[in-house]
Amino acid sequence: MRRAIALAARGLGSTSPNPAVGCVILDASGATAGEGSHLRAGGPHAEVHALREAGERARGGTALVTLEPCAHTGRTGPCARALVDAGVSRVVYAVADPNAEAAGGAATLAAAGIDVEGGLLAEEAEEGNIAWLTSVRRGRPFVRWKYAATLDGRSAAADGTSRWITSPGSRADVHRLRAEADAVVVGSGTARTDDPHLGARDAALLDSEITQPLRVVVDSSASAVKPGARVLDGSAPTLIAVAEDADASRIEGLAPVVRLPRAPGGTGLSIPALLRGLYERDVRSVLLEGGPTLAGAFVAARAVDQVVGYLAPALLGAGPHVLADAGIGTIAEALRLRVTGADRIGPDLRLTAVPVLPAPPATAPASEES
Amino acid sequence: MRRAIALAARGLGSTSPNPAVGCVILDASGATAGEGSHLRAGGPHAEVHALREAGERARGGTALVTLEPCAHTGRTGPCARALVDAGVSRVVYAVADPNAEAAGGAATLAAAGIDVEGGLLAEEAEEGNIAWLTSVRRGRPFVRWKYAATLDGRSAAADGTSRWITSPGSRADVHRLRAEADAVVVGSGTARTDDPHLGARDAALLDSEITQPLRVVVDSSASAVKPGARVLDGSAPTLIAVAEDADASRIEGLAPVVRLPRAPGGTGLSIPALLRGLYERDVRSVLLEGGPTLAGAFVAARAVDQVVGYLAPALLGAGPHVLADAGIGTIAEALRLRVTGADRIGPDLRLTAVPVLPAPPATAPASEES
Ligand SMILES: NC(=O)c1ccc[n+]([C@@H]2O[C@H](COP(=O)([O-])OP(=O)(O)OC[C@H]3O[C@@H](n4cnc5c(N)ncnc54)[C@H](OP(=O)(O)O)[C@@H]3O)[C@@H](O)[C@H]2O)c1
Ligand SMILES: NC(=O)c1ccc[n+]([C@@H]2O[C@H](COP(=O)([O-])OP(=O)(O)OC[C@H]3O[C@@H](n4cnc5c(N)ncnc54)[C@H](OP(=O)(O)O)[C@@H]3O)[C@@H](O)[C@H]2O)c1
Repeated sequence: MRRAIALAARGLGSTSPNPAVGCVILDASGATAGEGSHLRAGGPHAEVHALREAGERARGGTALVTLEPCAHTGRTGPCARALVDAGVSRVVYAVADPNAEAAGGAATLAAAGIDVEGGLLAEEAEEGNIAWLTSVRRGRPFVRWKYAATLDGRSAAADGTSRWITSPGSRADVHRLRAEADAVVVGSGTARTDDPHLGARDAALLDSEITQPLRVVVDSSASAVKPGARVLDGSAPTLIAVAEDADASRIEGLAPVVRLPRAPGGTGLSIPALLRGLYERDVRSVLLEGGPTLAGAFVAARAVDQVVGYLAPALLGAGPHVLADAGIGTIAEALRLRVTGADRIGPDLRLTAVPVLPAPPATAPASEES
Repeated sequence: MRRAIALAARGLGSTSPNPAVGCVILDASGATAGEGSHLRAGGPHAEVHALREAGERARGGTALVTLEPCAHTGRTGPCARALVDAGVSRVVYAVADPNAEAAGGAATLAAAGIDVEGGLLAEEAEEGNIAWLTSVRRGRPFVRWKYAATLDGRSAAADGTSRWITSPGSRADVHRLRAEADAVVVGSGTARTDDPHLGARDAALLDSEITQPLRVVVDSSASAVKPGARVLDGSAPTLIAVAEDADASRIEGLAPVVRLPRAPGGTGLSIPALLRGLYERDVRSVLLEGGPTLAGAFVAARAVDQVVGYLAPALLGAGPHVLADAGIGTIAEALRLRVTGADRIGPDLRLTAVPVLPAPPATAPASEES
């Protein structure tokens, strides 16, 4: 199963709206006969890849799958049926499918006389597929907020300089997060100040081997993204989110635009509407890269599912914060998290944490192509 | 030697202006014959304790000492001489004595025909005695700045509430740091807002078993500490630092007062003068507990030797910072640190870090009673 989890990870960032799944087929004697990953939405599921590789050796064997095999017919046909047809006698999966439409795979298999067991290495597999699972449960994309700060919580010095607070290792790690995400989101402030590129790079890979995320700029008044901006370089898709009533003539033809309602009584656009708009575009995981104002709005909307902080061992004593107003006035209202990791990356420290109380579902889960 | 380092730690917080030293005597066969710690300034040195316990068994044996034995005559007589008189044939020490007056111990021993070796577990022993060693090297007390903050670097919420940002485990750890320090320092702002007690408590120890630090309030205008303030409860010594020209009549008789020059052209008192004043009072290690304004002044004066941050997994998005103006205007001027530890304390994370470029010595080391 550990191998299947590793295989699943290969699909991260390119399978949405489908989950990243890995599968290993053992023959009747227990030897590995086939391996597969789900690599692309519309492409074969992990089970199908693995069964193809195993061929006749699957008969009487065992399938180890990171997610309960699907039972419904999508673009590729149900995997539960494929496993039955291949004659496997036992299926072991890690995580049950939370998707109402796809679920029933275990029941289909059991009805066909196959020995079915769920829950093996469930926690590890859940971790590896957390974005997709969260998106199904909440009916909106999984949101990972990334920030880079000094130990005293500053994202830049008093004069605005911030190159480089964190080390090359941390910056490379951010590119990995970008490649894993379906979309990278920044606010108009960051677009205006930093003119960021937001694409994923990896020194060890060819550009063609990286699945680029959708680059999203939240620019209510359609005034931050200008011709020549680096997000418009065509190396990755781009989407500009503007207000329903904005004059978008300045950005016409520069990039696709989505029109969204403004936040009721607040600054900028409605965060739930933004996430709904992205979900409708098959985005299941969002890397929120800031800035502090937009991140504050996400925290206020309780729309942050994971925090990844890169802490640089430096002190500034002045300069902008990583997180601005999140509507929290007193200590009892603080967003409480649970630390899930604290790792050194070169001289820096990478912290990961998740909210202690999970965010409430935004809407009922939308139906899922699988 | 590892045992000797553990013995040395027993004296932390109660030996100043002397170092914390541990000693183990092995007899000629290599069995432990005596152990000793230096526990109190004016009390016997570690070597003397250990030699007393070993008695005749020291003859022909080995002494393991965390610090090069002293060669000069203080209140207790030189240890090098005591080792020679006891007839040990070998002395192994971890760290050489950086103190000009005491040094020469190794030479004295060698001249008496004893086999002398230095540097065993030097790094570990240096770590355990870092406060005293730093104070000798810099000619001012070692300064450890402690802060407690949320992941986004806030020390309190927007309305000033901060109870409790960190967990009981972290707060207990701060009490351990207080007990290890010779003095705990806060600014007038913290004294005014929090009315802190600043004493060390330990649920596992009787109050009489804890060496209380000197509680220092930096209160230039002698206006923050008022009758009835918790720092005046008599459970630990207290010192109020005021400006030379302050009207101190309001605090007369409440606690000892030290008059210090103001910071040239800045807020409050001169930090070097404050540290000098404490050094003259035998303070070798300071726990700086804030607040942000005073901590900023210490950082600006490059007078922070270690940072201990308690990070609570919570986000606030508003509220005061842990560190205010430190005279740093641009990223290139940031105080760069090296992370030396990242440990979980319950739900919190404790970070320790030291400046990459050590602070320059303030003045020539003052002469040392040993
Ligand atoms: N260290 C880091 O991790 C990091 C990461 C990113 C950025 N930064 C720094 O952050 C700075 C920019 O920060 P910023 O706070 O000005 O910019 P920002 O958070 O990127 O953008 C804020 C803007 O986003 C728009 N917005 C749209 N919907 C919103 C909503 N619901 N709530 C709030 N804002 C919404 C608003 O402008 P409109 O109304 O015009 O749409 C708002 O002014 C830059 O200096 C950058 O370098 C640091
Ligand atoms: N989270 C934490 O770790 C932590 C720790 C401690 C405090 N706090 C919080 O911090 C807040 C108080 O912060 P604060 O910044 O107002 O107070 P502060 O730093 O404790 O005190 C600042 C004052 O110290 C005096 N001072 C003396 N010499 C100075 C110098 N060289 N440079 C600067 N100041 C000097 C100045 O007042 P005079 O001129 O009157 O002397 C100055 O206004 C409280 O709310 C407290 O709860 C948080």
